[in-house]
Amino acid sequence: MNYPNGQRKYKSVSHSNAHLGHGKRGMTLEEDVNITNQFYLDTDKAIIHKKPTPVQIVKVNYPRRSAATITEAYFKQASTTDYNGIYRNHYIDFEVKDTKNKTLFPLANLHEHQMKHMESIIHHGGISFIIIRFSLFNETYLLQTEDVLTYWHNMENNGRKSIPYEDIKSKGHIIPFKYQARVDYLSIIDQLYF
Amino acid sequence: MNYPNGQRKYKSVSHSNAHLGHGKRGMTLEEDVNITNQFYLDTDKAIIHKKPTPVQIVKVNYPRRSAATITEAYFKQASTTDYNGIYRNHYIDFEVKDTKNKTLFPLANLHEHQMKHMESIIHHGGISFIIIRFSLFNETYLLQTEDVLTYWHNMENNGRKSIPYEDIKSKGHIIPFKYQARVDYLSIIDQLYF
Repeated sequence: MNYPNGQRKYKSVSHSNAHLGHGKRGMTLEEDVNITNQFYLDTDKAIIHKKPTPVQIVKVNYPRRSAATITEAYFKQASTTDYNGIYRNHYIDFEVKDTKNKTLFPLANLHEHQMKHMESIIHHGGISFIIIRFSLFNETYLLQTEDVLTYWHNMENNGRKSIPYEDIKSKGHIIPFKYQARVDYLSIIDQLYF
Repeated sequence: MNYPNGQRKYKSVSHSNAHLGHGKRGMTLEEDVNITNQFYLDTDKAIIHKKPTPVQIVKVNYPRRSAATITEAYFKQASTTDYNGIYRNHYIDFEVKDTKNKTLFPLANLHEHQMKHMESIIHHGGISFIIIRFSLFNETYLLQTEDVLTYWHNMENNGRKSIPYEDIKSKGHIIPFKYQARVDYLSIIDQLYF
């Protein structure tokens, strides 16, 4: 990745957020999902939060009368997914990814420990999926972890390293855009699980 | 809080961790719970993780060929609990607190948004509780959120601002210490919910 050499000012808490591609409506997928989760929370539909960005804190300055300042820290790889919570008594766990690719979703966007985590969630009775946005088409899909795993295990056996766009179109479920629930993924979960 | 004026080196990722009182076995409650969760994970009993410490990132330095360095950041108040996950198909959500008090647990250790979050988790069908350690006695209790809420709402109506130790002893459930599952709280969950 070609980062500019220098300081960058942060508006947002999230690291990854700042680097996501922007959708046509001027929001990243992650921002859209966060707004959706806030709407779910406000309407008491579900309790789903984004986990904080994992940071390895090295140095902290404690001035006498003001807040502690972290002066040296590093981004860490997340060992699980970014989002989890509860909906209709069920544990929910998912990852959010956008791509500028037009023909496929590269599996390199997912990490092995994330996939193992999601596979394990299913074995323990949870609901797990990936939200994938093809940002150039502004199409957002929900793909169940069970389906992602088929491609993942195939890749592990020297198969292809991506999921074709056409497969996501057929096996995935397009998520409707709504004004408040901008990525209304729970409408898909309702259809699939309840 | 009287922090020393100066830089402090961090070994651990967790902010709160570094300030917790140490139990008689030389581990903080949080460390014991993290080890327990790792044991649950390794034995495929449950998938429960501590959420990363929430950090407000302000400045990041991107050197040309090495990892991004966060050079200015601040600790943020968590809006939920520290731990959540899945166990036997159920969503689990809890907070961990230790105290050096001998006669009571001060409710000031909990925040309003945390209590609202935990109350909401119960309404959505999740299992929620607090793990409280009286570190001077080295006694660790599980207290269900339903019970904590009784004291919390009483405090909101100008009642007492703490839970007496004797009440925790009678309403709570003492958590056994085991070699690998150092705070084996799921043994209590088994008794209470399954």
